[in-house]
Amino acid sequence: MVSIGLWLVGARGSVATTAIAGLLALRDRIVQPEGCVSALPQFEGSGLPTWDEIRVGGHDIAETALDKRAELLTDSGVIPHRVLDAVRSGLSEVDGDIRGGYHPATHSGSQADAARRLADDIGEFSSRHGLDRVVVVNVSSTEPVFPSLPEHRTLEALEAAMAVPGRTVLPPSSVAAYAAIRAGCPFVDFTPSTGIRLPALTELARRQAIPYAGSDGKTGETLVRSTLAPMFAARALSVRSWSGTNLLGGGDGLTLADAEHAGSKLASKGRGLATLLGSEVTAPLHIDNVPDLGEQKIAWDHVSFSGFLGVRMSVQFTWSGYDSALAAPLVLDLARFTSAAHAAGKAGPLGALGFFFKDPVGTDEHRLAEQFAALVSWAGEL
Amino acid sequence: MVSIGLWLVGARGSVATTAIAGLLALRDRIVQPEGCVSALPQFEGSGLPTWDEIRVGGHDIAETALDKRAELLTDSGVIPHRVLDAVRSGLSEVDGDIRGGYHPATHSGSQADAARRLADDIGEFSSRHGLDRVVVVNVSSTEPVFPSLPEHRTLEALEAAMAVPGRTVLPPSSVAAYAAIRAGCPFVDFTPSTGIRLPALTELARRQAIPYAGSDGKTGETLVRSTLAPMFAARALSVRSWSGTNLLGGGDGLTLADAEHAGSKLASKGRGLATLLGSEVTAPLHIDNVPDLGEQKIAWDHVSFSGFLGVRMSVQFTWSGYDSALAAPLVLDLARFTSAAHAAGKAGPLGALGFFFKDPVGTDEHRLAEQFAALVSWAGEL
Amino acid sequence: MVSIGLWLVGARGSVATTAIAGLLALRDRIVQPEGCVSALPQFEGSGLPTWDEIRVGGHDIAETALDKRAELLTDSGVIPHRVLDAVRSGLSEVDGDIRGGYHPATHSGSQADAARRLADDIGEFSSRHGLDRVVVVNVSSTEPVFPSLPEHRTLEALEAAMAVPGRTVLPPSSVAAYAAIRAGCPFVDFTPSTGIRLPALTELARRQAIPYAGSDGKTGETLVRSTLAPMFAARALSVRSWSGTNLLGGGDGLTLADAEHAGSKLASKGRGLATLLGSEVTAPLHIDNVPDLGEQKIAWDHVSFSGFLGVRMSVQFTWSGYDSALAAPLVLDLARFTSAAHAAGKAGPLGALGFFFKDPVGTDEHRLAEQFAALVSWAGEL
Amino acid sequence: MVSIGLWLVGARGSVATTAIAGLLALRDRIVQPEGCVSALPQFEGSGLPTWDEIRVGGHDIAETALDKRAELLTDSGVIPHRVLDAVRSGLSEVDGDIRGGYHPATHSGSQADAARRLADDIGEFSSRHGLDRVVVVNVSSTEPVFPSLPEHRTLEALEAAMAVPGRTVLPPSSVAAYAAIRAGCPFVDFTPSTGIRLPALTELARRQAIPYAGSDGKTGETLVRSTLAPMFAARALSVRSWSGTNLLGGGDGLTLADAEHAGSKLASKGRGLATLLGSEVTAPLHIDNVPDLGEQKIAWDHVSFSGFLGVRMSVQFTWSGYDSALAAPLVLDLARFTSAAHAAGKAGPLGALGFFFKDPVGTDEHRLAEQFAALVSWAGEL
Repeated sequence: MVSIGLWLVGARGSVATTAIAGLLALRDRIVQPEGCVSALPQFEGSGLPTWDEIRVGGHDIAETALDKRAELLTDSGVIPHRVLDAVRSGLSEVDGDIRGGYHPATHSGSQADAARRLADDIGEFSSRHGLDRVVVVNVSSTEPVFPSLPEHRTLEALEAAMAVPGRTVLPPSSVAAYAAIRAGCPFVDFTPSTGIRLPALTELARRQAIPYAGSDGKTGETLVRSTLAPMFAARALSVRSWSGTNLLGGGDGLTLADAEHAGSKLASKGRGLATLLGSEVTAPLHIDNVPDLGEQKIAWDHVSFSGFLGVRMSVQFTWSGYDSALAAPLVLDLARFTSAAHAAGKAGPLGALGFFFKDPVGTDEHRLAEQFAALVSWAGEL
Repeated sequence: MVSIGLWLVGARGSVATTAIAGLLALRDRIVQPEGCVSALPQFEGSGLPTWDEIRVGGHDIAETALDKRAELLTDSGVIPHRVLDAVRSGLSEVDGDIRGGYHPATHSGSQADAARRLADDIGEFSSRHGLDRVVVVNVSSTEPVFPSLPEHRTLEALEAAMAVPGRTVLPPSSVAAYAAIRAGCPFVDFTPSTGIRLPALTELARRQAIPYAGSDGKTGETLVRSTLAPMFAARALSVRSWSGTNLLGGGDGLTLADAEHAGSKLASKGRGLATLLGSEVTAPLHIDNVPDLGEQKIAWDHVSFSGFLGVRMSVQFTWSGYDSALAAPLVLDLARFTSAAHAAGKAGPLGALGFFFKDPVGTDEHRLAEQFAALVSWAGEL
Repeated sequence: MVSIGLWLVGARGSVATTAIAGLLALRDRIVQPEGCVSALPQFEGSGLPTWDEIRVGGHDIAETALDKRAELLTDSGVIPHRVLDAVRSGLSEVDGDIRGGYHPATHSGSQADAARRLADDIGEFSSRHGLDRVVVVNVSSTEPVFPSLPEHRTLEALEAAMAVPGRTVLPPSSVAAYAAIRAGCPFVDFTPSTGIRLPALTELARRQAIPYAGSDGKTGETLVRSTLAPMFAARALSVRSWSGTNLLGGGDGLTLADAEHAGSKLASKGRGLATLLGSEVTAPLHIDNVPDLGEQKIAWDHVSFSGFLGVRMSVQFTWSGYDSALAAPLVLDLARFTSAAHAAGKAGPLGALGFFFKDPVGTDEHRLAEQFAALVSWAGEL
Repeated sequence: MVSIGLWLVGARGSVATTAIAGLLALRDRIVQPEGCVSALPQFEGSGLPTWDEIRVGGHDIAETALDKRAELLTDSGVIPHRVLDAVRSGLSEVDGDIRGGYHPATHSGSQADAARRLADDIGEFSSRHGLDRVVVVNVSSTEPVFPSLPEHRTLEALEAAMAVPGRTVLPPSSVAAYAAIRAGCPFVDFTPSTGIRLPALTELARRQAIPYAGSDGKTGETLVRSTLAPMFAARALSVRSWSGTNLLGGGDGLTLADAEHAGSKLASKGRGLATLLGSEVTAPLHIDNVPDLGEQKIAWDHVSFSGFLGVRMSVQFTWSGYDSALAAPLVLDLARFTSAAHAAGKAGPLGALGFFFKDPVGTDEHRLAEQFAALVSWAGEL
C-alpha cells in the first residue's frame, strides 16, 4: 500500500488539531467527508491518496498535547463530543510524531542549522513510517510582515547569510519552506506569511523540481467575495465600494487584530478584490479581536453598486463560520492534491490549486467558479 | 443601415418604460451602459445591433402616456431627473408605436381573431419603419397560473380551439407568443407566465424556424442565489436550508403577493435551487407586498450549511435593488442577442441565453458563472 | 422554611426541561442566574422565594424521561454538558412529580372529570411536599385557535357544558387554567393558547381571588420589537412598514408553521406592534419551519420609516437565539413573582407582569422600558 | 408676536442647510413635521416657539450660497425636489444673515478679538430682527481633539490668554461658545467638539445664568444602541461584545475617518455603551469614509450576549439613514426647547435635553426611554 505523510508546521494549532481529529474520524468512517473538496465525485478517478494512506506529523513550538487542544475545540463547537471520544487515542499517537518547532527567539546557532534540524525531523518521520512522499503544510500563526532583504534575491546569497550564527535572515515560515524543499518535500502555505515567496526559495524549488502551492487559505469572507464579485462583472454592474469587517476570537483574533500581523493578512485579502472587479474600489477592511466569539468568525460585507442609469443599489452579507472547521478539510485536500501532483512529476507553483487560496501563486485567476473548473480539469489530467 | 424592432408586450409597465427611457438616453450618449451585459467588451465582435439601430413599439392594455409613467419612475428613484428631461420627447414618439393590448376580459370574438390583430400590429410596425426583424419581449404583469388543457398538446388542436368565439384556451402571454411567431418574430419571455411554454406553441416555433428564449428574468435574489449556491457545491459544504423573503412594492408587489399569481413566480424561483445544490433542501420562500417600498425590492436570504465534522454555519444576505433598473438593461440585451441569433439563422430555444433567466428554456444549467461562459462562447460564434 | 411549587403544564417540553435543569443548576450554584430577571439587584428586597425554595412538578401527555429530553437539549446547544452531568439525578427526582396530561383525543368522560383529576394531581403534589402555594405555568405546545362558544360567557354555562360526557367545550389550555384555579393556584400562560382568557374563567378567578398572568412569553423578535418601536415614536419618525420572518426548527417550528396553529401566535405577535407605533402599519409576518435549525430561532425584521421632509430610511435586524434558553429563566421568574403576588393577596390579572409577555393581560403597555419600570415599582410594593 | 433667533455655527453645512430648508417648508405647511420631536402631542402645552416665530442666521467659513448647497442635498436624496423649488427664495433671504466664521488659520489678532466680532454679529442679528432671544447651535464639522491647557481651568486665566495676539488657546467651537455666552445666548453643541465643555466656559455660563446643552447629536447607530442596550440589562442578559462599523460619505466621512478627528467622535460614541450596559465590554468601533454613499450612513452592529446557562446568542442590525435628515429636525427641536428654557429662567447644563445627545451634559442617563420620559416631564414644567 502506498503511504504518504502530511507534515504540519504549527501541528498543535486549531486548524491542525481539527484536521488531524477529522482525518482520524474519516478513517474510522464515523463522519462524512463534508467540506472535503477532494472527496467530490469530480475527483474520483484522480488517484488521490485515501484517508487511510495519510500519516500525520509536524512541528510546533507549543507543547500542549493534541487531545487537550481537541478538548478546547470541542468546547468551542468545532469538534463534536462523539468525535473527540472516538479519536482520543489516535491523537496521542500523532503526538508522538510532533517535534519542537523553530522560532528565532528560542534558537541559538545559525538559521542553516535550524533548517537542517527541521529537514532531518521530516526525513526521520518519512523513514520511520516508510512513506512514499511527505507534503509540508504551514498552518502556524500569521507572522508580522518580514522586511525584504537583498539576501532574498538569490539562493547563493541566502544560504551564505543563513550560515551566519545568530543572524535572522528569514522569518520562520521561510525557514520551514527551505527545510521542506531541502528534504525533497512539496510545500504548501496555508497562511499569508512569507513562506516560499522569495526569489531565492522559488529558485531552490525549481532546481529541486519540487511543486509548491499557496497562499492564505480562502475560508470565509474572501471565499464569498470571490464568488460574488464576478456576478457584478458579468452583469455590467459597477461596484462603487466594498466594505468589510471581520470579528474573530481565538488566538487568531489576537494575532490578526494586531496591526503589524494584520498587514500581511489585509494585503492578502485586498489583492484579490481589485482583480476580481477589474478596477480599484473603495474597500475599507477591518479585523477585530472579539475574544468572546471563540473559534467563531463573523464577517459583514457591504457592497454598494450602480446599475442602469446610474441607480444605486446594495447587497450586504453576514458570514458566520468556524475558521478551523473551514480550513481543516482544505488542509487534507491540499495534502492529497499536492501529493498526487508530486507523484505525477509536477514542479514549481501549482496554479491549479488557486481555488484554495486568497492570494494564489502561479495564477491570476481569483474567480471561484473558474478556479474550480481549472482544478477539476487539472486533476483529471494527473 | 440595418434596423431592428423591439416589440414590448406590456409597453407601458415599469420595466418597459425604464428600458425605453434608457435606450433613448444611451442613444443620446448621456448615460453609460451600466447594467447592459451586451455592452461588455466580451461581446464587441458579435455584430449585435447598436443602440441607434433599435426602434421600440409594443402592446399594452394600459393607456397612461409613457412620459407620465416615466415621471412616476423618477419619483421612485429609478430614472434620474436629468434623464427624464432629456428623453421626454423621445418617449412621446415611442407612444405613437404602442397599440392596445389583448385581455380576455375586454375582448369579444375568438382568440384567433385577437392573435391575428396582434400579429398585424407588429407587421405594420415593421413595415412602417422598414425593419429587418422585430423581437417580441413579454414584460407584462405576471399572470395567474393557467390550467393545462388537452388543446395545448398539438398546434392543430390549439388552433381549432382558438377559432371558437368566446373560448379562452390560452392566457394572454401565450396569445402574444402565438401572434409573435405567426408574425415571424422571435419571442422572449421575461416573466414567469406561460408564454410559449406549451407543446403546441413550441411546435409552431419549430415549424417556422423561429428562435425563442425565457423565462422569468433573473434580476435580484435569484441572481445572487445562482451565484452563491455553486460555492457550497464546489466546497463540499452541505446546504441544510435556504430560506428567503422578498419585500416589494409597486404593482409587482400587489400582483406577486397574491397567492394565485405568486404560484408561477415561486415555482420559477424554487426550481433552480434544487438543481444548483444537487438535492432538495428546506427552502421556505415568501413574497410580501410592502407598498411603501415603491419600486425597491428588499430580499433577505438565510443559508444554513454544515461543514467539516458536521459543524453548523450560516451566511445571510440582504439585497436592496430596483427591479426595473435591473430588468430594463437585460430587456435591451435580450433584444440585441435574440435579434443577432435570428439573423444568424438560429431556431428553437436559445439555451445560451439562460444566463438571463430564473427558469431557462433549452438548458439545465443554473450556475451563473457557467451560464456567462456559455453566453460568451455562443455569442462569439454568431 | 417557606416552600412553593411550580407546576408546569407541558413539563417534558423544551422550555420546561431547560427551566428545571437550570433551577437545579442554580440551586447547586454551578451557574450564574444569567437571563433571570428576578435575580436583578432591583428585586433584592421583594421577598421572592429563593431557588432553594421552589419545587417542580407538572403535567405532560408525553412520557419521555426528563433526562432524555435534557440530553437532546444538550446536543442542541441549550444545556451545557457539565450542567447535564450535574443535574441528571435531580431531573429523575422531578420526573417522579410529573403526571399524565389531559388531551381530548385520549380522554373519555367529561371535561369536568378531567379538570377534577388535574386539580387533584396539583393538590397531592402540594400536600406531598408541604408547599405553601403552587403556581401553575402553561408551557405546552401552542394550540390551534379554538372557536368562541356561547358557553364561554359565564361560569355557570361553562360548568354545565363541561359536565356533559364527551363534550369538548374548552381547549386543553383552558381546562388546565380551570383546574389550576379550582385548586386555588395562580395561573400563568406562557403560550398564546386560550388558557384563562375566557369570561367564564376570569369570572372564576375573580370569585376565588386568584391572580393570573399572561400571555405568550416575549422571548425573541417581539422582545426586540417592543424595545425598538418606542424609539421611532419618541423621535417622531413614521414607520411605514415592519416586515418580519421567523425561522425555527424543533417541535415549535413544526407547530407554528402550521397555518392553523400559527393563527394565535401571529395574532399575538401582531397586536403589540400597532399599539407600540400608535397606528396600523403594513406588517407582513411569517413563521417558517426549518428543522435543521434545531432549537435555534433566527428572526429577520426590516423596518422602513420616513423622517424629516419625508426622506425614507431603514433599519433591519437579525436575531439569533435559543428560544428555550430565553424562555426558561422567565418561567422561573414568573413563578417567583406570581407566588409573591399571591402571598401578598393580589388577585385578578397581574398587569405588572406584562414585561414578560407579547400579549399582556391587565395592561395596554407594550413598551419594554415602561414595562420594566412598572415591574420594578410593583415588586417594590409587594 | 414673540420672535426668536436660531444662530447656526456652520450655517452652510449639510445639517444646517437641511434644517433651514425644512424650517421654511414647515412654515409654508408643505411638509409634515416628521422627525420633529418637539411637534409631538406630548409637548403641545409647553409654550414652545412656533415654526413661524423662528428666524435663522449664522456663521460659516464657507461661502457657497445656501441654495447651491440645497441643490447638492437634493441630488443626494435629502431634500425633495418640490421642497427645494418652494424654499429657494427663502434660502437666499437667510443667506443675508450669514456672516463669515472664525478659523485660527485665517484669523490674525487675538482670540478675544475674534470672539468679540462673533458676539457682535449675533447681537446685530438680534437687533435687526427685534428678537426676544437667540439660541446658538454648533453644527460645524467635528474638530480634531484639542489639547487640555491650564488656561482652561478658570475664566480669568482663559481671558488673559485669549487677549494675547496670535495665541490659539481655544478650538473654534469653544470660541463660538464663549462668544455666544458673552452675547447672552444659550449655547447648544450638536457636535462632539470641545465647545463649552471647559471649566472656564461653564464658569462663565453659570455667572451669566445662561443655559447650555450638548453634546454630539444622537442620530443613528448610537440612537439604536441607547434603545437596545437597556433591553439586555432589563432581561439580565450579559452582553459579551458589541462591535460596530460605520460607513459614511460626504464631508463627514472624510473628517471622521481621519484618526485625529475620529478621536472625539469615537470617544463620544463609546462612553455611553459602558454606562448603558453597566460594565465595560469588548466594543471595537470603526468609522470608514466611503465617498460613494454620499449623504447616506450605513452602520452595522453585532452584539454577542449570553443568557440562561451561559448559552451564546446574538443580534445584529444594519442602520441605513441620512444623517442630515436625522439631525436637522433635532436642531430645530433644540432651538425650541432651549429657547423656552431660557425664557423660563433655566441656567447651566440642561440635562433634560440629554435625549438628543450621545454624550449628554448634566446627566448620566443614556437610556433612550428614560431620557424621553425625563424630557416630557421637564417640558411639562416649563
